[in-house]
Amino acid sequence: MTKNYTKTEQEFLDYLAEMESYGEAISLMAWDLRTKAPKKSVKLRSNTIGVLSQKIHQMSTSDKMKQFISELKGNTEDEIIHKSVLECEKDYERNAKIPDDEYKAYVMLQAEAESVWEEAREKSDFAMFQPYLEKLVDYNIKFANYWGYEKNIYDALLDMYEPGVTVEVLDQVFPALRDSLTPLIEKVQQSNHKPDTSSILVPFPKEKQEAFSLEILEEMGYDFQSGRLDETVHPFMISLNPNDVRVTTRYDENDFRMAIFGTIHEGGHALYEQNISEDLVGTPLATGTSNGIHESQSLFWETYISRSKAFWNRYFNTLKKYAPESISSLSNEEFYRAINEVKPSFIRVEADEMTYPLHVMVRYELEKGLINKEIEVKDLPRLWNDKMEEYLGIRPTNDREGVLQDVHWSGGAFGYFPSYALGYMYGAQLYHAMNKELNVNELIENGELNKVKEWLTKHVHQYGKLKKPLEILNDVTGEGLNADYLVNYLENKYKEIYKW
Amino acid sequence: MTKNYTKTEQEFLDYLAEMESYGEAISLMAWDLRTKAPKKSVKLRSNTIGVLSQKIHQMSTSDKMKQFISELKGNTEDEIIHKSVLECEKDYERNAKIPDDEYKAYVMLQAEAESVWEEAREKSDFAMFQPYLEKLVDYNIKFANYWGYEKNIYDALLDMYEPGVTVEVLDQVFPALRDSLTPLIEKVQQSNHKPDTSSILVPFPKEKQEAFSLEILEEMGYDFQSGRLDETVHPFMISLNPNDVRVTTRYDENDFRMAIFGTIHEGGHALYEQNISEDLVGTPLATGTSNGIHESQSLFWETYISRSKAFWNRYFNTLKKYAPESISSLSNEEFYRAINEVKPSFIRVEADEMTYPLHVMVRYELEKGLINKEIEVKDLPRLWNDKMEEYLGIRPTNDREGVLQDVHWSGGAFGYFPSYALGYMYGAQLYHAMNKELNVNELIENGELNKVKEWLTKHVHQYGKLKKPLEILNDVTGEGLNADYLVNYLENKYKEIYKW
Repeated sequence: MTKNYTKTEQEFLDYLAEMESYGEAISLMAWDLRTKAPKKSVKLRSNTIGVLSQKIHQMSTSDKMKQFISELKGNTEDEIIHKSVLECEKDYERNAKIPDDEYKAYVMLQAEAESVWEEAREKSDFAMFQPYLEKLVDYNIKFANYWGYEKNIYDALLDMYEPGVTVEVLDQVFPALRDSLTPLIEKVQQSNHKPDTSSILVPFPKEKQEAFSLEILEEMGYDFQSGRLDETVHPFMISLNPNDVRVTTRYDENDFRMAIFGTIHEGGHALYEQNISEDLVGTPLATGTSNGIHESQSLFWETYISRSKAFWNRYFNTLKKYAPESISSLSNEEFYRAINEVKPSFIRVEADEMTYPLHVMVRYELEKGLINKEIEVKDLPRLWNDKMEEYLGIRPTNDREGVLQDVHWSGGAFGYFPSYALGYMYGAQLYHAMNKELNVNELIENGELNKVKEWLTKHVHQYGKLKKPLEILNDVTGEGLNADYLVNYLENKYKEIYKW
Repeated sequence: MTKNYTKTEQEFLDYLAEMESYGEAISLMAWDLRTKAPKKSVKLRSNTIGVLSQKIHQMSTSDKMKQFISELKGNTEDEIIHKSVLECEKDYERNAKIPDDEYKAYVMLQAEAESVWEEAREKSDFAMFQPYLEKLVDYNIKFANYWGYEKNIYDALLDMYEPGVTVEVLDQVFPALRDSLTPLIEKVQQSNHKPDTSSILVPFPKEKQEAFSLEILEEMGYDFQSGRLDETVHPFMISLNPNDVRVTTRYDENDFRMAIFGTIHEGGHALYEQNISEDLVGTPLATGTSNGIHESQSLFWETYISRSKAFWNRYFNTLKKYAPESISSLSNEEFYRAINEVKPSFIRVEADEMTYPLHVMVRYELEKGLINKEIEVKDLPRLWNDKMEEYLGIRPTNDREGVLQDVHWSGGAFGYFPSYALGYMYGAQLYHAMNKELNVNELIENGELNKVKEWLTKHVHQYGKLKKPLEILNDVTGEGLNADYLVNYLENKYKEIYKW
């Protein structure tokens, strides 16, 4: 089916396709750097990525782009072009407001700061990273002012990652969520029926973990003709286009949970990207609509599906093909309880379902404070540890397990963290909606994970950026952000596990 | 050391670096497509490669480039800039002479023809490929006429791959080489002391072949911090830049020679690219100077080094760590003889040292005839088989083992094949020169392959494109192309093996 485009429309589509091509090349280089690239290649490759990024930046802020926007906005019958114009306009407005020299300096600062952070984290030395972080915060404040905002300066940053969500929303939802979680965590801690993890934290060869991971990805409906699984240090999913969506994982031979749940998590991200409508390819709409919705997909599989009893009723036998004796001799129930242990810990990416949102809140409150100039970078380590103690009852003993653990700030990504908690809540809402239409546990127990994927594709994946995050949520659930579904899910699940 | 460049010089260098960046991105995509890329990604990826190639083409023929050339040619004190300008001028002249629409149509034809060739080869069906090959020949004739030539139209194509070498040169050297080889091959065939290969053509697990390949690459001085070894269908070396030079190989579990000598061959190419001077990075000079010189490096390692008695006196023990009993129970001498069997065969890339040049001559004569319109594409299968019979005494029974075996023509690469034979002859000349300065066999037996690499780096690698192929040859050997060294090498070696 070829459409009849006007000359300008066709030129605009060609222009977008060219930008997407540079983006695809950058993504491949990024994947390669994090999986396969030889050590000494890094420096020159970073330059090359810089050249291509610069090219995209130029095209997104060019006079040509300005002209496309003014000619096509409100003046096209094609929905994909219409929404693409709006995306481009948003980018144009954002990018054009930053002076060229500041943009360049910022890009260089990001690259440098990331490598300084990596070393600082290794050495657990915040002082080393502090001057870079100060500059990054300053730039973000400056940019947020260029971009403008209605109520809180932090909204200007939030908008990049989760359009439609503001400080006003978060400051209602997060404290309420925290107030609901705190008593649950207390009950867990006071329980006399704690799961026993000693049998599952045993040596589990990497190759066998990999074999199981591949089998589960296949079950989920991940298309290996449009993707692959590789090993890396910090796992990620990357989409070059819907026909090439790659997953990575990390194997800890003494804790298989890292790789298994990590792979399923990234696999959830990947299913989103693999199932975006082909019609959107070559436009900026051919990707997930927001970080929050993306997390709703990865966490959907990681928590609601793969930490469920139904899942292990079906797949524990599969795991037993690969698992060491100590694990495979457990009953389904013992295993299910063991992988659902709740225990406050320092590292966000290793946190359990119950304490995870609190990790996010610590970060949200700190970065909101930084951007609002209510707190200073130099005080971060202390404030971080204070908040961890206040929210989770544990105090990091060094910055590596504290304020230096996450890469985000070193790349200048302020406003990103809330999407993790949002995704978690969206996920619970989607799970609730899915259960109205399907008997999810029954599907899982029958090994029909594909049906779960199909439902998500129908309601979420296919649209890419055609729909805004809250539009998707509303279309599927009939309501807006609502933390109750998450709280109910957690309460029902852990009440049974911890028998309170 | 930062140099003081004029404003134009600096702009020119930045312009070149941008072009090199696109080239690097394309190379990574090409490597990925041939090693790791998921199946369904191919179509969109080819588009992306097309976009970036187009970009390089535009930059190489832009008014800006024209201006750089006219401002800087003969008007710079910097040798690297001077030689880069000459390279760019050559490209500019070539590319600017081809009308834009013809260039585009040709690029598309190439892509299509390669995939048709792949299928045609699979099915051994030349008729399927014929119309594409006809068009490719027509384009090459047309382009050669645009570019111009002095004596023979084929020279215009040769010049792309081996500047300085012409039909006049080849028509002297090749028949003479053939006349020298024919009696040697006859002696081999009449010999009563033929090597026995039955003990080496035995099952040899892939993982063990890989382990040996990795060990030998390391011994050769291949830098794994600037490269890696992967598996592929049609092995190749690809250089993204001197700090990222990747080697690929193919494992045949019933014939270990494929992977071992193939890896050493590609490793020889890789050593060239890894050891190009850092000063040339970011310019078009940071690559091998010609296909012929490149082959002189790969064949140097594959034949003169790794098929020598000294090599296996040193490394047969290493191979025994991995090889099956049937191989490791051989004496050094038996093994050496077995891997040096001479036997006319159909497939060029599997040919022995003695018959290899004849494979090249078959192709050279046919493509020279095509471009000079002395023969027609439709007659190729018959002519190919006739020539094989005439030169090698064997007649292919189908096109898959005949005219369809090589990828080159499907990509429009006419004029490329001669460089294989040239490289072989250059290699013999370099080997002779090296032996005047070093006791090569002694170095090999002592495991000092690194000294061999250093010599090659000093005389060949480091210069990249700073020197022309015949300039390198002359600087090292004091003479021009001379087939005698190759003939002497082959005669001395095989006289002993076949005891004539």
